[in-house]
Amino acid sequence: MRYKVRCRLAYSLPSPSTFVFNVAPPDTMAQTVETESLTLEPDLPVREFRDAEAGNRYHRLEASAGTLVLDYRATVRTEPVASPREGIPATRPAVLSPHVMPYLVPSRHSESDLVMRLAWREFGALPETIERPVRIAQWIHDNVDYLVGTTHSATSAFNTLTSRAGVCRDFAHLGIAFCRALNIPARFVSAYSYDLRPPDFHAVFEAWLDGRWYLFDPTGLASPGGLVRIGTGRDAADVSFSLIFGPAILNSMAVTAEPCDSESAERPQSWSNLAISSA
Amino acid sequence: MRYKVRCRLAYSLPSPSTFVFNVAPPDTMAQTVETESLTLEPDLPVREFRDAEAGNRYHRLEASAGTLVLDYRATVRTEPVASPREGIPATRPAVLSPHVMPYLVPSRHSESDLVMRLAWREFGALPETIERPVRIAQWIHDNVDYLVGTTHSATSAFNTLTSRAGVCRDFAHLGIAFCRALNIPARFVSAYSYDLRPPDFHAVFEAWLDGRWYLFDPTGLASPGGLVRIGTGRDAADVSFSLIFGPAILNSMAVTAEPCDSESAERPQSWSNLAISSA
Amino acid sequence: MRYKVRCRLAYSLPSPSTFVFNVAPPDTMAQTVETESLTLEPDLPVREFRDAEAGNRYHRLEASAGTLVLDYRATVRTEPVASPREGIPATRPAVLSPHVMPYLVPSRHSESDLVMRLAWREFGALPETIERPVRIAQWIHDNVDYLVGTTHSATSAFNTLTSRAGVCRDFAHLGIAFCRALNIPARFVSAYSYDLRPPDFHAVFEAWLDGRWYLFDPTGLASPGGLVRIGTGRDAADVSFSLIFGPAILNSMAVTAEPCDSESAERPQSWSNLAISSA
Amino acid sequence: MRYKVRCRLAYSLPSPSTFVFNVAPPDTMAQTVETESLTLEPDLPVREFRDAEAGNRYHRLEASAGTLVLDYRATVRTEPVASPREGIPATRPAVLSPHVMPYLVPSRHSESDLVMRLAWREFGALPETIERPVRIAQWIHDNVDYLVGTTHSATSAFNTLTSRAGVCRDFAHLGIAFCRALNIPARFVSAYSYDLRPPDFHAVFEAWLDGRWYLFDPTGLASPGGLVRIGTGRDAADVSFSLIFGPAILNSMAVTAEPCDSESAERPQSWSNLAISSA
Repeated sequence: MRYKVRCRLAYSLPSPSTFVFNVAPPDTMAQTVETESLTLEPDLPVREFRDAEAGNRYHRLEASAGTLVLDYRATVRTEPVASPREGIPATRPAVLSPHVMPYLVPSRHSESDLVMRLAWREFGALPETIERPVRIAQWIHDNVDYLVGTTHSATSAFNTLTSRAGVCRDFAHLGIAFCRALNIPARFVSAYSYDLRPPDFHAVFEAWLDGRWYLFDPTGLASPGGLVRIGTGRDAADVSFSLIFGPAILNSMAVTAEPCDSESAERPQSWSNLAISSA
Repeated sequence: MRYKVRCRLAYSLPSPSTFVFNVAPPDTMAQTVETESLTLEPDLPVREFRDAEAGNRYHRLEASAGTLVLDYRATVRTEPVASPREGIPATRPAVLSPHVMPYLVPSRHSESDLVMRLAWREFGALPETIERPVRIAQWIHDNVDYLVGTTHSATSAFNTLTSRAGVCRDFAHLGIAFCRALNIPARFVSAYSYDLRPPDFHAVFEAWLDGRWYLFDPTGLASPGGLVRIGTGRDAADVSFSLIFGPAILNSMAVTAEPCDSESAERPQSWSNLAISSA
Repeated sequence: MRYKVRCRLAYSLPSPSTFVFNVAPPDTMAQTVETESLTLEPDLPVREFRDAEAGNRYHRLEASAGTLVLDYRATVRTEPVASPREGIPATRPAVLSPHVMPYLVPSRHSESDLVMRLAWREFGALPETIERPVRIAQWIHDNVDYLVGTTHSATSAFNTLTSRAGVCRDFAHLGIAFCRALNIPARFVSAYSYDLRPPDFHAVFEAWLDGRWYLFDPTGLASPGGLVRIGTGRDAADVSFSLIFGPAILNSMAVTAEPCDSESAERPQSWSNLAISSA
Repeated sequence: MRYKVRCRLAYSLPSPSTFVFNVAPPDTMAQTVETESLTLEPDLPVREFRDAEAGNRYHRLEASAGTLVLDYRATVRTEPVASPREGIPATRPAVLSPHVMPYLVPSRHSESDLVMRLAWREFGALPETIERPVRIAQWIHDNVDYLVGTTHSATSAFNTLTSRAGVCRDFAHLGIAFCRALNIPARFVSAYSYDLRPPDFHAVFEAWLDGRWYLFDPTGLASPGGLVRIGTGRDAADVSFSLIFGPAILNSMAVTAEPCDSESAERPQSWSNLAISSA
């Protein structure tokens, strides 16, 4: 599948500020950036760097007081792998790959330590397989209302569990917290998603099972096939689309993703019962 | 300087459990493990792994129901570097090394995003140098009571800022939160400390300035020279001395550190105004 | 029914302190204090006062540095009213008696405003009758573990909802929060309870339906008939057994309640499906 | 002094809802409602009731689906008493009037139990007089930013102490929490205030000293003389301008207060160092 993605962010700056953007998708096993462009108004030098762990691409720049507009566009080919869910076991902590251990401990927005008892009550009787994250995603979908405006950047799984409302980011954080509480490594994924209405950055989570990251979207809003991965981290704190050092006001934001062909526009019903892997 | 360190942890296990211990100091630029031994009762196979980022050494094992005793001993030579504080500048985010960027964002126990306004009110007028973390450590020392038993494993900087009481771990978390709020990368260090009374694992924090990690101990309890580093992470969640998967009760815990010679037993007064670097 | 109740509280005081005790049951429609004695070591003048709203009895005294022992004993006759649950309607806010309005708003330990969405999700489809608080009590019993030592005096319903563990006080706070979220006035009751093991002060909650307060015990630990009411308030903050101004250490605490005859020792099975009213 | 006050609240109701408004000032020792009118569109029966404790006036009504507009107007004469601050002692808990005891314990938005240590650190060395609440109000003014939009209805003193930003209501809650932590009864006051810009309901707090309630405004925004008291309670939860049972959207809100003569428009400088009492 192939998508044209774009984001345009316009800021006003009362004084000079440094930005670190995380809006450019990386090449991964399951996606290839075919073309891309990053333009800035005013034109400013940008340094790109990647984190060793997840391959996230960060663009850093210093902007003077005034305004700043970033316009990023790319065409990205995605090849998510769908496989039957049956028989995908959870991996015992005793044999987990060391590189996924950091995704087992609590983080800023996914306080797995605080939801232990609830996680085991709700999901502890399920088989130790992919069934657990599947049910976790379903539970969140059933028990939390998707409501724009009810949460903010400081909201965490702990809050969402009581308030029972949030957006994609909050849904992902809660999924991550529950998985970790059950000893399943889990991480946060920010993405472009072509069929999100209204268009915005999307967020989902991944759980590590049987040596691979599998994708879950508790919102049920987007097709896993139509997802273009941007950043992967412990939670949203790692992959904010813009980390700003200094005062800056986001004046406008437009995020779009469009399928390049009809196949890419489909949302295969059959996928809803498959295990999706795109990392 | 040279120290003999030891920790002995005894658990009872109602059922089989997996442990990941982080009690063994790594070799770093500033410390060398000269001899060490790790014994287990019962004798069990152990897998050691290191994290790529900080070099932390983790020992993982599976234990059957019953009891488990871990006894770790080592002799460690330390060579912390003390230099004058004057003129050590903070590094602007625009030129920070990418590998320290993860230490700028909020984590489970150091919610820098929640303390922004307070951090800038208290420390924003200070020069953009090592003076900021120095004053942060001093502020914590002056404003938070060191009181065993007032906090627990879920306590974070956000709580400590209101309750104004805690132990070394809480002091470190608050120091980290303040530093990050001021755009100074900061991280958590667990350690053996020879002059801590009563003996226990110690915790301090490091701030990144001018291309190097500098050590701060807001408790003022231990001599920076007498510190044997164990683990380094975003906060305590990364370097718990034991991460346990399964039910286990810690029955007893003994942590000791002893100087091997008289020089190592000294606590040089002169150091109190120096910048200490041991990473 | 008739019970002998007693509580003995021993404190040490580094310096003079003022105490307000709430350990003496009041006479109400449903209970009569037949005999009582309050002794203090050392012997100190005590002022008793009652609050106008609930009739709670408070004993205030000033103690010098040293030790203080309070020993309160009483024989109390109780006459709770048990009636069929069927047909007890919730009262619409539009016609609620003004004097119960304060029990509709959130309080320190029962943040009903934070649990609105969850309360309506879980209980909103039930008929607007006593069935709602009945199911609330049942839900708490089924979903929260009764575990001594997991909570402390600052714990509130908001915490318990995530941690899913607590003691009688926490169970009551959560019940109150849920009721208020559903527009049912609810309040906290501290009590002596003869069949609590280990003996301690007990806590339950009351919900206002059809012009009367009905009693609920989400712990299921005590027989409603064996309850001797001490204090009634918005939550535990109003009816702490001892409010202390100054430094004081509680060295020992013994709370007992014993039936005076065999009838009072019974725990009628039939009551479990009745509506109990004792206010 | 004499003020014309008015509030106009317009709601849309998807379905029938019950409202309890607290917008009408009561007659007190220090204020007299000379004329008033309450109009509703559509015209609906209203029940007025007062709480026994504070004399607050509540207007309750049931509205059908559609729209509701409340328009309240009054002319109120105020006679606050200004006296020298010197020599106003705090009252020891041992001799406090029982009726103010409820204002010593923590409430929903003023968790005095959580700020004990900080309160004593900051204010514990001050004389046990009105100096304590005076300095508390000053501390809040100096350490918390008045910023509309940073807080919401669930915000409490605990949050404000870390975030260091809020509006009049948050300032009052923090003042109350600090006072109670220092054993000074304190309560919340909602009010019309003629010189607030932009016009809105105002909130201040009162502390009980030497047998009287004294007024404090940590925002420094309004003249104590220009305050028309509406509601008095433990915190904002008791005196919400509208408590709504059912779905309702506040579409517009206008609150005004105007001096009736030039004397009432003055803001005497001399008052800034006086103790103001208006209860």
